[in-house]
Amino acid sequence: MTGAFAERHIGTDAAAQRVMLDALGYDTVDALVKRAVPASIQVAPRSTSDIPPAATEAEALAELRILASQNRVARPMIGLGYYDTFTPSVISRNVFENPSWYTAYTPYQPEISQGRLEALINFQTMVTDLTGLETANASMLDEATAVVEGMLVARRASKSPSNVFLVDTDALPQTKALLAHRAEAVGIELAYTSFAEASVPEAFGAFVQYPGASGRVWDPTEVVSAVHAHGGLVVVAADLLALTLLRSPGALGADVAVGTTQRFGVPLGFGGPHAGYMAVRAGLERQLPGRLVGVSQDAAGHPAYRLALQTREQHIRREKATSNICTSQVLLAVMASMYAVYHGPSGLRGIATDVARKAEALAQRLREYDLHLVSDSFFDTIRVVTPGPSRRVIERARSKGYQLFWVDDATVGISVDETTTADDLAAVAWAFGLPEADENDVRDIPYADAPPLAGVPSQLARVEEYLTHPVFNTHRSETAMMRYLKQLSDRDYALDRGMIPLGSCTMKLNAATEMAAVSWPEFSRVHPFAPEADVHGYLAMIEQLEVWLAEVTGYDAVSLQPNAGSQGELAGLMAIRGYHRANGDVERTVCLIPSSAHGTNAASAVLAGMKVVVVACDEAGNVDLDDLRAKIATHADQLAALMITYPSTHGVYEHDVLEITQAVHDAGGQVYVDGANLNALLGYARFGDLGGDVSHLNLHKTFAIPHGGGGPGVGPVAAKAHLAPHLPSHPLSQRKDHAGGVFDGGAISAAPHGSASILPISWAYVRMMGAEGLRDATAAAVLAANYIALRLKDHYPVLYAGEGGLVAHECILDLRPLKEATGVSVDDVAKRLIDYGFHAPTMSFPVAGTLMVEPTESEDLGEIERFIEAMIAIKAEADAVAAGEWPAGDNPLSNAPHTAESVVAGEWTHPYSRETAVYPVHSLVRTKYWPPVRRIDQAYGDRNLVCACPPIEAFA
Amino acid sequence: MTGAFAERHIGTDAAAQRVMLDALGYDTVDALVKRAVPASIQVAPRSTSDIPPAATEAEALAELRILASQNRVARPMIGLGYYDTFTPSVISRNVFENPSWYTAYTPYQPEISQGRLEALINFQTMVTDLTGLETANASMLDEATAVVEGMLVARRASKSPSNVFLVDTDALPQTKALLAHRAEAVGIELAYTSFAEASVPEAFGAFVQYPGASGRVWDPTEVVSAVHAHGGLVVVAADLLALTLLRSPGALGADVAVGTTQRFGVPLGFGGPHAGYMAVRAGLERQLPGRLVGVSQDAAGHPAYRLALQTREQHIRREKATSNICTSQVLLAVMASMYAVYHGPSGLRGIATDVARKAEALAQRLREYDLHLVSDSFFDTIRVVTPGPSRRVIERARSKGYQLFWVDDATVGISVDETTTADDLAAVAWAFGLPEADENDVRDIPYADAPPLAGVPSQLARVEEYLTHPVFNTHRSETAMMRYLKQLSDRDYALDRGMIPLGSCTMKLNAATEMAAVSWPEFSRVHPFAPEADVHGYLAMIEQLEVWLAEVTGYDAVSLQPNAGSQGELAGLMAIRGYHRANGDVERTVCLIPSSAHGTNAASAVLAGMKVVVVACDEAGNVDLDDLRAKIATHADQLAALMITYPSTHGVYEHDVLEITQAVHDAGGQVYVDGANLNALLGYARFGDLGGDVSHLNLHKTFAIPHGGGGPGVGPVAAKAHLAPHLPSHPLSQRKDHAGGVFDGGAISAAPHGSASILPISWAYVRMMGAEGLRDATAAAVLAANYIALRLKDHYPVLYAGEGGLVAHECILDLRPLKEATGVSVDDVAKRLIDYGFHAPTMSFPVAGTLMVEPTESEDLGEIERFIEAMIAIKAEADAVAAGEWPAGDNPLSNAPHTAESVVAGEWTHPYSRETAVYPVHSLVRTKYWPPVRRIDQAYGDRNLVCACPPIEAFA
Repeated sequence: MTGAFAERHIGTDAAAQRVMLDALGYDTVDALVKRAVPASIQVAPRSTSDIPPAATEAEALAELRILASQNRVARPMIGLGYYDTFTPSVISRNVFENPSWYTAYTPYQPEISQGRLEALINFQTMVTDLTGLETANASMLDEATAVVEGMLVARRASKSPSNVFLVDTDALPQTKALLAHRAEAVGIELAYTSFAEASVPEAFGAFVQYPGASGRVWDPTEVVSAVHAHGGLVVVAADLLALTLLRSPGALGADVAVGTTQRFGVPLGFGGPHAGYMAVRAGLERQLPGRLVGVSQDAAGHPAYRLALQTREQHIRREKATSNICTSQVLLAVMASMYAVYHGPSGLRGIATDVARKAEALAQRLREYDLHLVSDSFFDTIRVVTPGPSRRVIERARSKGYQLFWVDDATVGISVDETTTADDLAAVAWAFGLPEADENDVRDIPYADAPPLAGVPSQLARVEEYLTHPVFNTHRSETAMMRYLKQLSDRDYALDRGMIPLGSCTMKLNAATEMAAVSWPEFSRVHPFAPEADVHGYLAMIEQLEVWLAEVTGYDAVSLQPNAGSQGELAGLMAIRGYHRANGDVERTVCLIPSSAHGTNAASAVLAGMKVVVVACDEAGNVDLDDLRAKIATHADQLAALMITYPSTHGVYEHDVLEITQAVHDAGGQVYVDGANLNALLGYARFGDLGGDVSHLNLHKTFAIPHGGGGPGVGPVAAKAHLAPHLPSHPLSQRKDHAGGVFDGGAISAAPHGSASILPISWAYVRMMGAEGLRDATAAAVLAANYIALRLKDHYPVLYAGEGGLVAHECILDLRPLKEATGVSVDDVAKRLIDYGFHAPTMSFPVAGTLMVEPTESEDLGEIERFIEAMIAIKAEADAVAAGEWPAGDNPLSNAPHTAESVVAGEWTHPYSRETAVYPVHSLVRTKYWPPVRRIDQAYGDRNLVCACPPIEAFA
Repeated sequence: MTGAFAERHIGTDAAAQRVMLDALGYDTVDALVKRAVPASIQVAPRSTSDIPPAATEAEALAELRILASQNRVARPMIGLGYYDTFTPSVISRNVFENPSWYTAYTPYQPEISQGRLEALINFQTMVTDLTGLETANASMLDEATAVVEGMLVARRASKSPSNVFLVDTDALPQTKALLAHRAEAVGIELAYTSFAEASVPEAFGAFVQYPGASGRVWDPTEVVSAVHAHGGLVVVAADLLALTLLRSPGALGADVAVGTTQRFGVPLGFGGPHAGYMAVRAGLERQLPGRLVGVSQDAAGHPAYRLALQTREQHIRREKATSNICTSQVLLAVMASMYAVYHGPSGLRGIATDVARKAEALAQRLREYDLHLVSDSFFDTIRVVTPGPSRRVIERARSKGYQLFWVDDATVGISVDETTTADDLAAVAWAFGLPEADENDVRDIPYADAPPLAGVPSQLARVEEYLTHPVFNTHRSETAMMRYLKQLSDRDYALDRGMIPLGSCTMKLNAATEMAAVSWPEFSRVHPFAPEADVHGYLAMIEQLEVWLAEVTGYDAVSLQPNAGSQGELAGLMAIRGYHRANGDVERTVCLIPSSAHGTNAASAVLAGMKVVVVACDEAGNVDLDDLRAKIATHADQLAALMITYPSTHGVYEHDVLEITQAVHDAGGQVYVDGANLNALLGYARFGDLGGDVSHLNLHKTFAIPHGGGGPGVGPVAAKAHLAPHLPSHPLSQRKDHAGGVFDGGAISAAPHGSASILPISWAYVRMMGAEGLRDATAAAVLAANYIALRLKDHYPVLYAGEGGLVAHECILDLRPLKEATGVSVDDVAKRLIDYGFHAPTMSFPVAGTLMVEPTESEDLGEIERFIEAMIAIKAEADAVAAGEWPAGDNPLSNAPHTAESVVAGEWTHPYSRETAVYPVHSLVRTKYWPPVRRIDQAYGDRNLVCACPPIEAFA
């Protein structure tokens, strides 16, 4: 018993692999992969490595405990969009630490995602209610990116000819940094203003922080009118907790509201992950980036949730896309929505009132000391002019465990939150040193009688109701809340039920040991702008992970700041942009993208200010070298980059990759390798060795971070040394020096280290697998995909193969011949798989009418066989339709999925039996997953757009 | 927003309580309870209290963090039945920290308990396989009590006239302590022997520790034969991990094997809870104490699990019972069984081999130093003669974080376990000071090549196979394991699905915050015999809880050692016994018990060496005062005690309680008040004020410890000062001094503080409720019970009521008239409730043909109404049967519960519809819980006793 984690992570043991290899005709797994991967790109296992030998689970936890102990759990009062909060334990335990929630995939298959879709509808309702706007999406990556997206919405929707976007000087510093970086790339001119006068310059839009970063609360109504008068739109970043007491952005006339929902029970986590939000007024729905959950109906006419208006999304709109956001922050959005469900409107108002009282009580005490406040109109944050150097106050506070915000040499910022106590207020007052009290003579600051919002203009007091829907007024006891969470998760299919063989999504095991540290206070209760001395453990872990990821990918530098694959992609392209510009090559803006690429590639290129030129692919899905050379020749001096995915989006190791990258380099271009399929390569080849200059990785695919039902993700950007200076920096980062160099590009995420609190997951994965385990995982994944391809090829043609007729880590089953022969569609097959107890593979990507199957290394042979048998049985069912045994419009496939209700209620009029409907395989009797709704009518929902909680009568 | 935990714990808010009070005709909840509780026993809320004002959840967690920091997470190598172990994270997260497992009740309703019953069958199979015996039960409380029970089995089964039980001098010290204490009470004479000679004295049984407490492994075959020759039985306590390498007790000829499964992945937890085990040879099945899971079949003929041979159990056999064990350790048994499922036979053998190698490697190093080992035949534990005082070695080890066992002034004991590393071995060797090496010159002790079991007689090497069933050879990857755990929990109904209104069981909320600290290493990785200096946090928490429990019950002293209610009861009766004997009243052995008492009362009395005399009850279920006085008069000089339950087992506040207790005291007897119903009293009256001298409490009822599917429990014994000297002590306790006095009675549990690691749950409950919250909870519980009684009384007669026609915290619905009128039985109603999505109330206790309903304070009005509506609808269904609408033998009640398969497969031939079968209420369509089996044939299973995993073909 070695206790090797790799044996637990990899689903197939030696005996199972032997069976699979015998079927495929290979002696060893290694031999199979070496045949599949072109010899020219293979690397030998390294004799020396920065990655230590694999640790056991216990050893990894022990090391994480040491790293944790090097962080200080202080009392952060820095604010700037991040506040300490109490995560209700019932939510921590039953959502954050429950695989039924965190191992789910993005709800593209809505019939098996009704639980989290309901939670997201609650989230959208919460946001629209509090912001006073019409429609909210199902979360944004963070507040700063949401502001950028808001600016882009304004530009699209405004009729103003102006290229100017007005920015509040009292915006959060990270928001300003992102706006600057992103506006420049797309040619928007920013103009900063304090909106001191109601008349504003001509602009297509304006951004207002409400309350301001300084804490100041003011009435922007006149500014809004003035911007509107010029045809501009107004984007307001608003604090949701403040909105329980303050007039909503909608009531103030704003067109777009954005922000974060972090303080609704989501741990600080050194900056993330948290759910940002965006809401828009009526008429702008179709401009919303990201995902939007809507209500539709199922085949029985029952209400059912699903993603709405997907045609807006980047993966469909490609180079016409206006946003590159894919992953959102579902798990965190669920938590924030549940915080609102649990507290309800009266609870939230109570929390906000308490917060406002604390701020006022502290302000009163400081005024007693004759200290001057920069503004007397505030909700939770005050800025105080210090009697001496502000550093002295900050250091005094720090000596007692409090982190305040250094504004300038004479000003300190203090934010209170729901966790602040009367003791805390007293300690902060003491830090100001007036009177120079004895350390033991700190007077409590009781706040119960302090008047909340004492200095706020009275017309800003909230009058509109919010969260009146029963869901926010029912689950008030912990018992009720626990059951609601259980009922929702019971409706969903996640990795804890069975295989999710989604091609390109790599739904591998998210091991419990990997997840453990995320819940520890030393990782969860840390402010992203905490002083360096308080976060040594975090910085050490991040540096180790950077070094390990650089080694396995063949790069020199890695930034973990991007909090989604799309953002890593953007950061990589921005680094290329920065590099060319630094070389004076300002004309290099053409980005070559193969026709087979994922749509997000093109969207990101556009947002990086590039012009997309499509390169043709041959019939096998490989880049057409001749066309590539032709396109390079055409755009010679403008060539910025080529983006390729390796192995290709068709799941094949392209043979010509070295020639491709060489051709680009010869023309002065940079090569961007999309890391989506890294799980097919790790340990056998490295992007850097293929000629890649930069890549993004998906830690939520290859490196075991769970998908969370559609986020969080982490999308590190990895690059060669010449691009390192252009990797993301951050105005409030604890350091610019990384193992791979000094990063000095623009900020890409709101927090310096992105979704820092989930990095221990990937750290633990690499630490417990070791270099050898990572290689073994690749081999097992490739073996499983090839075994499935072999077993199914007589039933469904397998599209594309590389060397030796082998696929990489996924295979594409062509269902077009089946459709032709039987009328059964890829959708029918996908939905029928639900009846068999499976999540469907990826549908119609990269080729319409196909299913792309990626089993990953974590599935065992039993589950793989169960899937194969289901696919073969479904083929037989389709054949029966073709043979006329069942009519085309009424058969187990066209009616799939079948709910329990559908086989119980009323007369059974179908030409097949109830058993055939729901127990097509007998073993399902013991393990049946019951979908809660029948097939959902997608078009109905888009025609009748409803994106908030439907009345409960709808379900009667 | 006060953040008051009580508002989350109590299900009904003010508005809901108003509705209920209006129906009942009371102004306030307090007024209702004050009317129900006899005025003579009511106490006013205390103006001063040892219980601090209620803390918020965050505050309680912060205080627990401080207490945790006062424990030292050392490396325990003390052994003596307790070993550090790696709990696989997948088991921690998905069982130990998952309410679907820990909030379930004992599987008395087998149709909704198939998941945990399968886990327990796995447990039993694991135990029988490893011990080489025929039948194992579903766990014991701990090893020491299991040995006592083994002794009692031997006495019952032996035909020997001898009264002597032979005890191995190399038994664990705690086992010796319990044997001494328990044998004396039932008149068994113990004789200690080292079994140095094969010939043994005449005895009805003998006990052998295998391996011995000293670590010594020897072959007891000849001793076994010699005991058998006299007609005696042999009880062997065996280490399960050692049994993967050593010949099994069964192979050695033992009749009974006992032990603990702690080291199979269950955290040390300062002594518990852990699952003990017992297995017996063929022919002794019906002698097994505790619970036994067997295989039977359901109405469709499918295999189904349920509790077997229940007629053996104490609650049925009353004073004829031979054991008082009720609660077992289900949650921990599940964990241990899953450890075996996850590792499988090869994994376990590998772990054991590693452990044996480590011990041998350490022994070799020490021998190199010319140190003498007491025995050279060992598995994991060695005893070493120290060159100087043994304390010096122990202190040197402690200085490096290691805890060794002080055997005597010249001997140290060292136990290695699966967590021991080569570093650890080196540090321990260093502690012996030979050579007096520099602290930085500690040589690693690699152990991979050390020969395991080098000194063990070769005939003791294991040859028998074990764990060959597929369940122990399938779930080897974490993904497979996670899904197996999910599939099992999906079959079960726990508090996370809905109400479990079990009268007398108090299935209230087990809040996530209460559960949090149990998982922290500072509480979970602590050895029960750790030195006092390393466990200050634990001792402080325990003392606080003792003081709080004493205050709320009106007693002076509380011992938390008993790890189940039955053991608390026994400890209380033993204290009474000790008190009388100390006073020279050796004749006082008569224990009066009302006829309505729970059967365990009588069983415990017998085991405390008492003679049970039954006191009659009147029609209302109250003690018949005249009969009590008559019985007291008859037994005047022999009167030891009266045991009563308050409120009575009929759920009523008896009016005459003070007269009853006075009568007993006047006759020189002691009053034992059973604390099962304390949830109806807390804050309104106190056992001590009622005249109680001693009580046991059930922390797993009143004080929020979850039931764990049938354990763990904690059954503190609380007493007046005069009994304190007779409360449980322990030979290895860190202290005898308690807040309530010096406890000097015999030990009752294997560990000094019983199930210490779950005490933070009750600590947090009291800390977050405060005295006021506890009182409010009582009031809400009483309100809910009375509301249900009111709403249902027109449909089912409510048996028994007290003052004002009110019940206490539960009500008894009489179903006998229904049975009479319609033929529908209480069983039919209970099973039909499953179709409605409920766990049945308590059946036929305390009165046959009734249901006892206890909603507790944690249910909200919505759930209470749902239950009431279900009961009313079921009454209407029964009426339809009576009206001839449905035949008696084929109706929704007689066929309940209905599985999904039963309404899907085959023809539907019943006179009611499928919808009526499974969706009798429409809202079930969205929230349906599907029972996995139909009604289980109890008799079939007892006739065809199978208590191990059935072959998987059985499920085909």
